[in-house]
Amino acid sequence: MTELYYSVARPDNGRLAIDGAEARHISRVMRHRRGDRIAVTDGAGCEYGIELESVGTERVVGRVVETGVMQREPAHRLALAQAVLKGDKLEQVCEQATELGICALIPLRTERTIGRLGERKHSRLRSAALAGLKSSTRTVLPQIDVEHDLAALARRTGEFDQALVAYEEERGAGLVDVIRRDARSVLVVVGPEGGFTSDEVETLKRSGMTSFSLGPRRLRAETAAVATVAAVLQMLGDLG
Amino acid sequence: MTELYYSVARPDNGRLAIDGAEARHISRVMRHRRGDRIAVTDGAGCEYGIELESVGTERVVGRVVETGVMQREPAHRLALAQAVLKGDKLEQVCEQATELGICALIPLRTERTIGRLGERKHSRLRSAALAGLKSSTRTVLPQIDVEHDLAALARRTGEFDQALVAYEEERGAGLVDVIRRDARSVLVVVGPEGGFTSDEVETLKRSGMTSFSLGPRRLRAETAAVATVAAVLQMLGDLG
Repeated sequence: MTELYYSVARPDNGRLAIDGAEARHISRVMRHRRGDRIAVTDGAGCEYGIELESVGTERVVGRVVETGVMQREPAHRLALAQAVLKGDKLEQVCEQATELGICALIPLRTERTIGRLGERKHSRLRSAALAGLKSSTRTVLPQIDVEHDLAALARRTGEFDQALVAYEEERGAGLVDVIRRDARSVLVVVGPEGGFTSDEVETLKRSGMTSFSLGPRRLRAETAAVATVAAVLQMLGDLG
Repeated sequence: MTELYYSVARPDNGRLAIDGAEARHISRVMRHRRGDRIAVTDGAGCEYGIELESVGTERVVGRVVETGVMQREPAHRLALAQAVLKGDKLEQVCEQATELGICALIPLRTERTIGRLGERKHSRLRSAALAGLKSSTRTVLPQIDVEHDLAALARRTGEFDQALVAYEEERGAGLVDVIRRDARSVLVVVGPEGGFTSDEVETLKRSGMTSFSLGPRRLRAETAAVATVAAVLQMLGDLG
């Protein structure tokens, strides 16, 4: 397994610089030396192969020997709107959903949401997405949105070919019944620990969303989120 | 949401007793009183509705007013063989896979497995399965097997209609290509943090297993396990 590093820097004169925590990781933890080759992504779709020319603890510089757009991204855009969860559970969901292939996480405030998304928690979500990007060797960093309320989320329904909401009181349609296999962009919405209220689901449905059931077993929010992301990517052909 | 309690006791003379931690939870945390109705599962497929007659901190007794086999179990038997993981990650996988619907967890020792499954960790797995059973309102408690090595696992391949191993070096077939939709029992095998060696995968394939890819993005073991369980249950029609 090759490590993938992250730097927002652009190549300058055929050279790429990596600063801060990533530079420390390359020099101190991985103990790379001048002449080693490493892979760096800009989190926006590009990956560079670089040959290290100088390795410092605060800055690493290498010569770009390869530039490419790697074919590891899903063909479909899948966004996850997830109600804010207790403790570090939203971070866990963010990291796992990033590995699987989401393009965006929209944190949600709902009637039964416990806790708010403060600046610290928001920054932790960005770190979790970065960790997921690196461990999965993705090259596109998911966007971590600001906290939305239900009305704000409902206004975004039209941005996606299809928008789906997991609702535990839904008894009819499962994912397989509602998914449109020709959709190129999908939004999936998962509620908080206590679930959505029926009014909330109505608001989302009025905006054009479709509700679906994950079956008769009650899933914790974090399990529902990861299972839905995996099942949707699988049905769209983006999970191998 | 109704709480579901767990007791291995059988009804005796139309009465069911609940002891220990569950009794304390019913009396102290949920503050149930004589006359309240609660639901209790035996973890072996039965669920009882009982009307409480006496509520003590160490023992709760109720009259059985309803007995049923609830239709919340998957129609297919899905077992997960998962390499032992660092920290509490195997417990997390166990709890989430239980919610989703596995019938058994087989902990695996592999070449790249870090750590062993001691008695304490094994007991924690049983607790995680029980937590997953209760939160998902399942009525069948997954069996937590003893730790298997690869040879022992290979000998069990024939117990299942189909046995599948997630292999990150597999470039061809995805889950959708290999799954047999007429299988009534499926074993899925997921490796440790560092993956299986090619020799290990060969051993499993010689026993009749089929390897599959989860796609070009590298998934952490715990993400791969939950994603595979969700995707397989979805394809078999057991996820709503």
